[in-house]
Amino acid sequence: MAHTTRQLSLPPQLVADLKAVEDQILRRIDSQSALINAAGQHIVSSGGKRLRAMITLLAAQLGSYTLANTLHAATAVELIHAASLVHDDLIDDADRRRGHVTVHTQWDQGVALMVGDYLFALAAGEMALAPDPRVIQIFSQAVMTISESELHPVMVTTPLETALAQYYAKIGGKTAALFEAAAAAGMVCGGGSAEHIEALRLFGYEIGLAFQIIDDVLDFISDEATLGKPAGNDLREGTITLPLIYAVSTGRANGLANLLDAPALTEDQITHALLQVEQLGGIDRSLAEARTLVQQGLARLDIFPASLTKEVLTDITTYVIERHF
Amino acid sequence: MAHTTRQLSLPPQLVADLKAVEDQILRRIDSQSALINAAGQHIVSSGGKRLRAMITLLAAQLGSYTLANTLHAATAVELIHAASLVHDDLIDDADRRRGHVTVHTQWDQGVALMVGDYLFALAAGEMALAPDPRVIQIFSQAVMTISESELHPVMVTTPLETALAQYYAKIGGKTAALFEAAAAAGMVCGGGSAEHIEALRLFGYEIGLAFQIIDDVLDFISDEATLGKPAGNDLREGTITLPLIYAVSTGRANGLANLLDAPALTEDQITHALLQVEQLGGIDRSLAEARTLVQQGLARLDIFPASLTKEVLTDITTYVIERHF
Repeated sequence: MAHTTRQLSLPPQLVADLKAVEDQILRRIDSQSALINAAGQHIVSSGGKRLRAMITLLAAQLGSYTLANTLHAATAVELIHAASLVHDDLIDDADRRRGHVTVHTQWDQGVALMVGDYLFALAAGEMALAPDPRVIQIFSQAVMTISESELHPVMVTTPLETALAQYYAKIGGKTAALFEAAAAAGMVCGGGSAEHIEALRLFGYEIGLAFQIIDDVLDFISDEATLGKPAGNDLREGTITLPLIYAVSTGRANGLANLLDAPALTEDQITHALLQVEQLGGIDRSLAEARTLVQQGLARLDIFPASLTKEVLTDITTYVIERHF
Repeated sequence: MAHTTRQLSLPPQLVADLKAVEDQILRRIDSQSALINAAGQHIVSSGGKRLRAMITLLAAQLGSYTLANTLHAATAVELIHAASLVHDDLIDDADRRRGHVTVHTQWDQGVALMVGDYLFALAAGEMALAPDPRVIQIFSQAVMTISESELHPVMVTTPLETALAQYYAKIGGKTAALFEAAAAAGMVCGGGSAEHIEALRLFGYEIGLAFQIIDDVLDFISDEATLGKPAGNDLREGTITLPLIYAVSTGRANGLANLLDAPALTEDQITHALLQVEQLGGIDRSLAEARTLVQQGLARLDIFPASLTKEVLTDITTYVIERHF
């Protein structure tokens, strides 16, 4: 992965197809309940690059693609993503996401609960329009995995093996499961063989892990303007992520491992901890791991001949991982 | 409806098929998360007569029935019911349901939120195994309707037309939508015509309304041992239901209409209000309305020739409505 694509330009056809997905999403959220309409529109419009829909569309394009055959799966994955964000924010009691006020903060917890349920049900109805019932199996399994992972936080920073196992289980469920489903469902819509579907599943999973690692790295090194929330948020909330795990694993972290046991951290403690994690190589080692995962993921596509679609998948993946570095 | 079936005996084949549904439900809740397993088993085992599964099975038996063709829809409807109970209890912050401690009380709110999501996703996967994709459309629409109705309480007791419209919108979503879906999906699995499916849809809806009216009546007149929660619970929580609406509509309710505006009612006030609602005919009029709805619902089945299945549907419906009176 020599090149860094800091500006991403998408092929016009992909842009047009993504627009069709966007239109479908907004058309679907047409509830008789004004509350659900407002909160549903709010969450699906709150930024987001429709990365999962993009992966579904492009995965299908590695097979025999038509928009009609893939639109419903691509729409469903974004509806599931929106639903799980609303419920995730509710569990975390997060005030903001990507700089936008969260649903349970702007309305209330009941609205957030029901808007999430509504969006999940909308996604189920949308999936049922996909040409292959395996699409539903793939996405419902992803939602089950996401739900399981919400209840299982990373508990320890040491020993390293345990911490890594817990961290990967967590981000595997929280993030990678839906990327995995997006890619596999796309290939199902594209009529791929079992081998092709499995390759896309692994591609999606590995890309998803890398995506979440980058997200966790940015929480250590970005400013509030980029993140839409203050840096050091994970530390502030006692969430253990990969940069911290690697920093602690150096054995030179004096006190970093126990920091999260404190009832509340001062801003000085957080600033110091962020610096310490970076100085102990926690950022660099995490970034290296994300890049390795991206290379692994992209190598899964080696079974497909060279094509514009493969180039675009490589560009998008690289862009998402590298754009902040 | 002259006869009152106080003892319900089900045909052996229906009992056997319900056992297959029960086994399928328990087999499906097999999460890698011990928390989801425990909470999921807790909710699906907390009593319940599997009335919705029964309706799905019997609806299919009005067409060309096989258990294999109907098992997945019957399992899905009970999983959806369990999921919506968990989220409903979370919104209402109810401590108990049918005498059993609720999931968010025994575990916590995060567990209840995720167990509900997990069960909804499990239901989606189960539906995908049904022989007809319309089953998914029917159930996902029902979940959307349930979610919408959760956010729209009955706000007024007068004028009567407004109160009735709000009450029927509420119970139509909260309860009747899933009975409607259970019956319609069953007929789809039984390969029924559009006319047959529509008849079952209306049957389910009307039976569901009656079922909820009876539930609301019992809250006024039952004891805690029967209800699994104290009588007068709706009044205590400020929930406006049909017996209260009809009592207020007599114009002789002095103070009853404003009772729910009080910040908290004393037990004396509740006991007095329960008595007043009964004396003003609120119970009798609600019961009469439930019985009319049951007759309407059963009349929808007139397009089918006489059969054991029709008799069983009549018996079950009558039993559910009349067993406490």
